[in-house]
Amino acid sequence: MAQQEISCGLDYITAPDLQACLSEALHANYAFIVSPIIHPRFRRPILPSGGTVGGFTRSDMILSPQDWNSRIVGKLSEYLDPDAPSPIVRQRHEDSLNEELSYCRGLGLPAVMLSLHSKYTNNLARTLHTYFETSHHPTLIWASVPMLCHKTLKANIDIDNENDDAWNEPWHWWTKFHERMGWDKRIGVVIEMSADLPSQDILKRWLGEPIRAIIVPTSLFHNNRKGYPVLSRAHQQVVLSMVEHDAQVIVSGARRSNIEYYLQYLYRVWKRRPYIGDDPMLSYAKGWEDYLQTPLQPLADNLDTHTYNVFEKDPVKYDQYQKAIAQALTDIHKKRKGEGIDDHQSDSCIIEAKKCEVGQGDNTVKENERPITVMVLGAGRGPLVRATLNAADITNSKVKVIAVEKNPCAVVVLAAQVREVWRDRDVIVIPGDMRQVNFSPKADIIVSELLGSWGDNELSPECLDGAAGLLKSGGISIPREYSSYVAPISSPRLWAAARAASPGNSAQIEKNLETLWVVYMQNKHDIAETKCVFTFDHPAKGMKNYEGQDLTDYRGLPMTDNRRCTTLTWEVEQDNVMHGFGGYFDCLLYGKEMISIVPSTHSPGMISWFPIFIPIKTPLRVMKGDKIKAIFWRCVSARRVWYEWIVEVGVHTTPLHNPNGRSSEMLL
Amino acid sequence: MAQQEISCGLDYITAPDLQACLSEALHANYAFIVSPIIHPRFRRPILPSGGTVGGFTRSDMILSPQDWNSRIVGKLSEYLDPDAPSPIVRQRHEDSLNEELSYCRGLGLPAVMLSLHSKYTNNLARTLHTYFETSHHPTLIWASVPMLCHKTLKANIDIDNENDDAWNEPWHWWTKFHERMGWDKRIGVVIEMSADLPSQDILKRWLGEPIRAIIVPTSLFHNNRKGYPVLSRAHQQVVLSMVEHDAQVIVSGARRSNIEYYLQYLYRVWKRRPYIGDDPMLSYAKGWEDYLQTPLQPLADNLDTHTYNVFEKDPVKYDQYQKAIAQALTDIHKKRKGEGIDDHQSDSCIIEAKKCEVGQGDNTVKENERPITVMVLGAGRGPLVRATLNAADITNSKVKVIAVEKNPCAVVVLAAQVREVWRDRDVIVIPGDMRQVNFSPKADIIVSELLGSWGDNELSPECLDGAAGLLKSGGISIPREYSSYVAPISSPRLWAAARAASPGNSAQIEKNLETLWVVYMQNKHDIAETKCVFTFDHPAKGMKNYEGQDLTDYRGLPMTDNRRCTTLTWEVEQDNVMHGFGGYFDCLLYGKEMISIVPSTHSPGMISWFPIFIPIKTPLRVMKGDKIKAIFWRCVSARRVWYEWIVEVGVHTTPLHNPNGRSSEMLL
Repeated sequence: MAQQEISCGLDYITAPDLQACLSEALHANYAFIVSPIIHPRFRRPILPSGGTVGGFTRSDMILSPQDWNSRIVGKLSEYLDPDAPSPIVRQRHEDSLNEELSYCRGLGLPAVMLSLHSKYTNNLARTLHTYFETSHHPTLIWASVPMLCHKTLKANIDIDNENDDAWNEPWHWWTKFHERMGWDKRIGVVIEMSADLPSQDILKRWLGEPIRAIIVPTSLFHNNRKGYPVLSRAHQQVVLSMVEHDAQVIVSGARRSNIEYYLQYLYRVWKRRPYIGDDPMLSYAKGWEDYLQTPLQPLADNLDTHTYNVFEKDPVKYDQYQKAIAQALTDIHKKRKGEGIDDHQSDSCIIEAKKCEVGQGDNTVKENERPITVMVLGAGRGPLVRATLNAADITNSKVKVIAVEKNPCAVVVLAAQVREVWRDRDVIVIPGDMRQVNFSPKADIIVSELLGSWGDNELSPECLDGAAGLLKSGGISIPREYSSYVAPISSPRLWAAARAASPGNSAQIEKNLETLWVVYMQNKHDIAETKCVFTFDHPAKGMKNYEGQDLTDYRGLPMTDNRRCTTLTWEVEQDNVMHGFGGYFDCLLYGKEMISIVPSTHSPGMISWFPIFIPIKTPLRVMKGDKIKAIFWRCVSARRVWYEWIVEVGVHTTPLHNPNGRSSEMLL
Repeated sequence: MAQQEISCGLDYITAPDLQACLSEALHANYAFIVSPIIHPRFRRPILPSGGTVGGFTRSDMILSPQDWNSRIVGKLSEYLDPDAPSPIVRQRHEDSLNEELSYCRGLGLPAVMLSLHSKYTNNLARTLHTYFETSHHPTLIWASVPMLCHKTLKANIDIDNENDDAWNEPWHWWTKFHERMGWDKRIGVVIEMSADLPSQDILKRWLGEPIRAIIVPTSLFHNNRKGYPVLSRAHQQVVLSMVEHDAQVIVSGARRSNIEYYLQYLYRVWKRRPYIGDDPMLSYAKGWEDYLQTPLQPLADNLDTHTYNVFEKDPVKYDQYQKAIAQALTDIHKKRKGEGIDDHQSDSCIIEAKKCEVGQGDNTVKENERPITVMVLGAGRGPLVRATLNAADITNSKVKVIAVEKNPCAVVVLAAQVREVWRDRDVIVIPGDMRQVNFSPKADIIVSELLGSWGDNELSPECLDGAAGLLKSGGISIPREYSSYVAPISSPRLWAAARAASPGNSAQIEKNLETLWVVYMQNKHDIAETKCVFTFDHPAKGMKNYEGQDLTDYRGLPMTDNRRCTTLTWEVEQDNVMHGFGGYFDCLLYGKEMISIVPSTHSPGMISWFPIFIPIKTPLRVMKGDKIKAIFWRCVSARRVWYEWIVEVGVHTTPLHNPNGRSSEMLL
């Protein structure tokens, strides 16, 4: 969850008197301090098991347990290199590392910080694996890296456009280390801000990582005219963007000012950050960032009151529907004028219409006009009925509304609305599954909202095709067309969250990584652009046989094939690790009226859908210039619908996900 | 298991009368026939669900269930291409494929054969996944590929050394397909032999794949002087090598001779194949090929009689020990002569020796000579005691043998042997763990055999270091040194077997792929050469502290560190897929006497150890020129020892295997 407040810590290079350091920092309003675990006075014996009497660092009695548990981030000794080339040095450092880790475990520190200096971290990662396997306290590991690798920068001084390497390098250290730790969610990254700042691309890639803190060296501050330390606008921006992604701030280095001033300045920067405006999505999504939910199955399960309540509050969706319905009504009027009112199917409608005229005296619709039949399929508690009636009023149309709903609880609400709110209007409620009801007259317009976060994933195609017999030939379906979209993303956090959704059950882990998750994604990075996957049209064109004849099913409805298979490719523009896909949809309701949750065309303020996250079982390392190839299948059997997917990068391939819908499916 | 007999089938391009075809083949002594599933007379409707009356192929009543179940390999229609570029064609072929598969499922065929024509098999693999998920009959899938891709050959005609591509290409088709099927053991490959034959490297790589059959086109036969069809020597060799790896043979194509002649010829080739000789290992291993066993833990568990029985039958191991002991005895004699017999530790020995002289009248040892104390650590039922006594006889040495054994059952046997067989010899039995017993006199020679298939994996280092107090300063340890070895291998069969060792339990799958397996490996291919991993010396040199002083434990024994970490790299010489490592050991007993199960130096006829297979969790695709980097750790805690490993190829890495010994360990 994005923080309301900025949380700052103070870094001590050395802390001979830990109590004094902590008091000083708390007095200056810092929330925590970062301090070496090893007291500078103690020298260690060669072997963990060997010989020297007494401890190797300070006693844990000098602070209260509460302070140890919440105020102290312990820094492992900087010099430790358990991946040193010399076997003897490596072993000695590994022993010392274990000694420090074991002390941290004893103290129950909230976090232990270590520095990464290179891509060689196999033995470090192995040692930390063992630490996690043998530790039950939820200590976090903070791995700190510089933003810029000065060594690489110097090595590349001549080749101008290779300087990116100096920015890439620390990201590679971090991500290799994180990969070796199995993308464990207990591991976070701490970035030390540099005087120079990287390109937006590099910065954005960092924002996809689980950033726990940003180290702001005091040397980056300069004094303003009043003598107070301040940061450049660019540095402020970097700090803000990280804090918005949940990072804490660590002030580090020589004190050129009173330490309180740094903190006060950071508070001020955070408070006067640009106001993001009233985007209802942002306030609606607060608290749901990166929180995984399983998609609803409104067809198999009936929605509950709470869910209806939430959906009906969308300030945008029903407006769009209303506009689309109004447009459709207008178009039908025009068409009828063009054709005259003679129409083979109109007789029974006129009879019906006459009955309904009673009590509609204040209606401006011409008495003799045939009503337009609008069928709302999956009417729920009536928001689309409302939108239809509004559209009729606006366009001066006479409508007959037929609300079809399968959920008995919602039918109760609909019936009450007809009795109480819509008693002057021509509204009929038909309880039942739209794929099974039969009704006359047929509809001029069918209105439905059966879309999931990935478009067709709540089985809108199957429902609407099953209800095709309710629509007049040449009638209008709202929506007319919808498509699903994906973009390959990097997100260790989402991947680890999906993986861990049922801890301790590895059969479940496999299922979790073959499932679509609804989630408001925050801590992720788009590796490449969003592309279209599957598209569905309504009313659907039926299939033809070899001779070009229309194929129909036993009810005489057109036979449709809602199976799909789509191959997508992307070129990678920056070294990255792919953890899965972000998934979205857009939908053409009618005319030009759209609703969309595709990031580039998102309907402003529409809150009804969070995106989906589609994981891949094995994260794939992708390098600049690599081609990502993804294949998605939509599979249909008599009883259910499911997706399968596979990703290839060069000669490397993921396993096939969700074969035969074994891990996730939508029931018909 | 390697076959005793050759099993041949006859391929029918078309089988209008299946009964007649089968009768003909059986009459000519073929074991089975390969026939298209679709009868040539039937044309299929466009849709599986759609319209046409009647079946799409012949009735299953024409053969008996037994014949369907054992004599018929069904061929899917050649033209089916569920990965066609056109979505409509793809979908139609997928539907037809499902129809044919579903018919095969109904018949319960032993195997279904399909042809691979390209590397595009994603949709085929997906369809087969669904087939397996929904099928409970153990039908095998045979994927046939040509040995040589003529298309690639023609495309590369100008570039001479690129012709390898034409041989590589079909292997890539197969292996990509197999990878997409998750290396499922129900999938096998069928190779169609070509007139030209590939290099030995390519052929050997094929032998690492699960080859179910080799198709021998009749066009490869020529007529000998008597007019009978025969194969060239090179083609015979290829057929033999495949049949030795469990392949069946399918005779295919136009009948230029009586079909019986082909079969009779193949039988003859198989019968007169070169005699492999009396390698005891080959006859001992028969039936154990590619069969995975968990390694013994003789330290934690006591061995049973049956196991002792097997080990004691080794015709080579104890000979080698006997030679090594003899050499050591000779060297001690020489040394004593050089030094004179004065020796600080000799007093109690002399006293003991005098007692033992009673009843040794027929011994040629000089009466006054001090006996050499030989301690057999882990004496089991006595084979090394026997070897020591033999060595003493051969070298005319007077020995005092002390047999230490912790297994009470074995101690019973030893005591009986002392009473009955060795009553004239100086043999003492000490029951107990060699790490805990204390005994005087100290040994001149310690003899032990505590080695596992991977050298130290039965904890020989820990046992011998714990027994270091039993050896005189300057004494001899037999063995003196041993090392473990690995080679990266490709073996879908071993990998799938390890993965499936506990079906249905995915927590177990993870464990299985983090475990060492003892196995006589047959169906595998070495990707690169065998390299040394860990080495241990005995008596072990102790560690020193900063000041160069020896470190000792509470008993005054040298402190040793048996943890290890080794990084190995290999360059890949041929595109391949790595599934894990083959593991071996060698051991210098004393002088020049070795025992080894490293393939290049394997002690001829020694049967006591099968190699080990070390899997990796995710098979890694490696390309010619790639570098494989493997890191192995040997980790030690107070109670147990375990291995961890990780493999890197370019930017790709496996997870860390067995962190903290969570899946496999050896108890101390």
